[in-house]
Amino acid sequence: MKQFLSINDVANPQKLVGEALKLKANPLGYTQLGKNKTLGLLFFNASLRTRMSTQRAAQNLGMEVMIMNMDKEGWQLEFEEKVIMNGASQEHIKEAAAVVSQYCEIIGIRTFSTLDNREEDYSEMILNAFVLNASVPIISLESATLHPLQTLTDWMTIEEYKKKDKPKVVLSWAPHSKALPQAVANSFVQWIQKAPVELVITHPKDYELAPEFSNGATIEYDQNKAFENADFIYAKNWSSYTHYGKVLSQDTSWTITEEKMSLTNNAAFMHCLPVRRNMVVSDEVLDNGNSLVIQQSENRIYAAQAVLKSILER
Amino acid sequence: MKQFLSINDVANPQKLVGEALKLKANPLGYTQLGKNKTLGLLFFNASLRTRMSTQRAAQNLGMEVMIMNMDKEGWQLEFEEKVIMNGASQEHIKEAAAVVSQYCEIIGIRTFSTLDNREEDYSEMILNAFVLNASVPIISLESATLHPLQTLTDWMTIEEYKKKDKPKVVLSWAPHSKALPQAVANSFVQWIQKAPVELVITHPKDYELAPEFSNGATIEYDQNKAFENADFIYAKNWSSYTHYGKVLSQDTSWTITEEKMSLTNNAAFMHCLPVRRNMVVSDEVLDNGNSLVIQQSENRIYAAQAVLKSILER
Amino acid sequence: MKQFLSINDVANPQKLVGEALKLKANPLGYTQLGKNKTLGLLFFNASLRTRMSTQRAAQNLGMEVMIMNMDKEGWQLEFEEKVIMNGASQEHIKEAAAVVSQYCEIIGIRTFSTLDNREEDYSEMILNAFVLNASVPIISLESATLHPLQTLTDWMTIEEYKKKDKPKVVLSWAPHSKALPQAVANSFVQWIQKAPVELVITHPKDYELAPEFSNGATIEYDQNKAFENADFIYAKNWSSYTHYGKVLSQDTSWTITEEKMSLTNNAAFMHCLPVRRNMVVSDEVLDNGNSLVIQQSENRIYAAQAVLKSILER
Repeated sequence: MKQFLSINDVANPQKLVGEALKLKANPLGYTQLGKNKTLGLLFFNASLRTRMSTQRAAQNLGMEVMIMNMDKEGWQLEFEEKVIMNGASQEHIKEAAAVVSQYCEIIGIRTFSTLDNREEDYSEMILNAFVLNASVPIISLESATLHPLQTLTDWMTIEEYKKKDKPKVVLSWAPHSKALPQAVANSFVQWIQKAPVELVITHPKDYELAPEFSNGATIEYDQNKAFENADFIYAKNWSSYTHYGKVLSQDTSWTITEEKMSLTNNAAFMHCLPVRRNMVVSDEVLDNGNSLVIQQSENRIYAAQAVLKSILER
Repeated sequence: MKQFLSINDVANPQKLVGEALKLKANPLGYTQLGKNKTLGLLFFNASLRTRMSTQRAAQNLGMEVMIMNMDKEGWQLEFEEKVIMNGASQEHIKEAAAVVSQYCEIIGIRTFSTLDNREEDYSEMILNAFVLNASVPIISLESATLHPLQTLTDWMTIEEYKKKDKPKVVLSWAPHSKALPQAVANSFVQWIQKAPVELVITHPKDYELAPEFSNGATIEYDQNKAFENADFIYAKNWSSYTHYGKVLSQDTSWTITEEKMSLTNNAAFMHCLPVRRNMVVSDEVLDNGNSLVIQQSENRIYAAQAVLKSILER
Repeated sequence: MKQFLSINDVANPQKLVGEALKLKANPLGYTQLGKNKTLGLLFFNASLRTRMSTQRAAQNLGMEVMIMNMDKEGWQLEFEEKVIMNGASQEHIKEAAAVVSQYCEIIGIRTFSTLDNREEDYSEMILNAFVLNASVPIISLESATLHPLQTLTDWMTIEEYKKKDKPKVVLSWAPHSKALPQAVANSFVQWIQKAPVELVITHPKDYELAPEFSNGATIEYDQNKAFENADFIYAKNWSSYTHYGKVLSQDTSWTITEEKMSLTNNAAFMHCLPVRRNMVVSDEVLDNGNSLVIQQSENRIYAAQAVLKSILER
């Protein structure tokens, strides 16, 4: 693998999932692979799971890790071409990306959407500027529109816990008090459409995901109907793509409750975390044995490790 | 040892002190013990000594260390049960603690008291929520009411520098311009009562420590009298427990000066640091050869290493 | 080497440059030298290159690295002697430096000038207070008046890319929208005067550098004339030393452009970064093959590694 920005960088997603599961069974089988190599993690936004799981993944491969909170420990970067830099930005991405490439064998970048300007967010300005100007492979630690490390984890978790060859997987929108990016949901439908599952998306009208990622996936606007016979319920809030960045509904009848879960085929519950309890999902569902959210967080290590291993082996 | 929240987790404190002294003599004797194991350090409050000494302790044992400033790099956690999370908190401690447990073999937590609400502080909400929800051992890096790594260090330092079998150790309140937690003082009296010393506490009226920790220890309200024949003076400011979190006195006649020290049996001076010079203690006392404050800070490494070693060996 | 605050700590600068070039050819030749030793990096100001390159240098030598953002993760330090600490400062440098010395074999410090008070800045209060109170070697990661790791890198880069025995090297002031420290320029003239080059400084009147560092180096106030026959153009903005900390000019006729570069002997372009594009230097010059700015940033690793190696070998 030469970089990891989306599923488009993965020749065979099912094989990568298999690799991640193998690493889970034997995490310390490749401690020489990353020896004397450094992973740089650059955060433009807060992170807990991604930061710690990716750090652990790198350590499992014998890599060193350097972390920079660009927003707090560094300075403002300029992304515009040909600009006269007499404002707040102190360094151009052209230099920043090239420089960090001198110190790291692989660079991971986390950057969120602003939810202000759809065109700008969907152009993936920051991530793509790093790809363009860095001389080493780039890994997305979640970007404005996608979160591929999360989705690789999710696929891996479905593979690990599925009880039938082709389970029904439902991505359900759920209410939230703040406007959230579409990245996790976009990434989920982009990948899971290629997984050996039956995928159904359910959300209120006007919460349709970006067509470039949802790509004709089945939508069922009636959440109850969508849940019928489901084997996995993947809950996530996202703000509107069509009315960009807007919270159009906080309708708590969409909250995932035990009553909703009872409509399913004793489905497992999934969420990428962090999750707002009793908004997105009830305490009962999260604290129930069918919830896989902590297992997902553990699998983040092995998803990241599979990606790092594949890049190191190139 | 299965966790390290207070002396109650230590079967034999004197033996643990001995272990710390042995590690000081041979810091790199166990570099294989922590191999491929990770210590996660989560800071809800600032730290210098604890952070660096614990990191060094872990490195001496071959462990990797991951540091998260939860207050700056992460997001606000929710600690209430059954709450509808539609406010500022983005993640519940139930998930946060369980998730971090996937990435670390041991978790250290630093969290200060707010000094607003005694009942809340003394319930150790944050620390206990981590203990309850984590699946790996928790180490206190100072909590709302106790600072056991500091006191283990202090006992070790007294053991190292004592000139008689049962030295007289005086914990003296000293003035300060801000309201400070009772944690160091609470922890000191809780542990040192079990040490082979004669312990006397001296402080102005209404600065009595929490009975659950002071547990009937001798109080002498006359500082001069308390200092007579003392072999160790341990200075510390704390705010009032009875008038909770209040600064009742800034009386600089309590400042530890050379004149005060001359009342003692040529006592060693101790303080956990950071210390405000010429408020808590005069320059002369700190810069004198009888001061052990830097030796204490060095011993923090071996106290932490003894605790980590004991948990790793479990 | 017993410390690294300026060229005055370097017995033979040319030999140290040679050592850095040898380490570049064989970065992992000394991975045992730093084993079980820790480098502490204390930042009082933001850093990207210095932080990552020094971290990488230490890793190449097998050292562990601990990073503290003193301004964000710690607390305010007191530097005054004999002060009654009843204000904002929570710890005196006397304790802080001595304590950090217990946890690290070498300490690196970054601290910028305030540009408010020349006497204070040029007294190097913070750096010198660490030197005075620490018990381990101190490395400057840029101080109020000097940036020796940068200049060692610059000399190394000139050595690596020079096409004649005694190239002409021009340090050119260039415009900037903010008041910047004189540290990089001071350090450059202090070192490069001792290098086997012809050094010329060019800047507008009243931008003369501190005499203690420029020490009679040739100044040519006509930038065009200075550029004639130049083999290296080293651009840098600095604020006035004589009118201390003031921006006296933002004259963009001093910006380094292709037209200016055409006056030279096909000179290489150098800058320490971060650089403001189209203020200090035009896009065309930076994006041209004659620019060495990224090579400089790479060389920061080996300059730092040469310094660390020399200190470790002492």
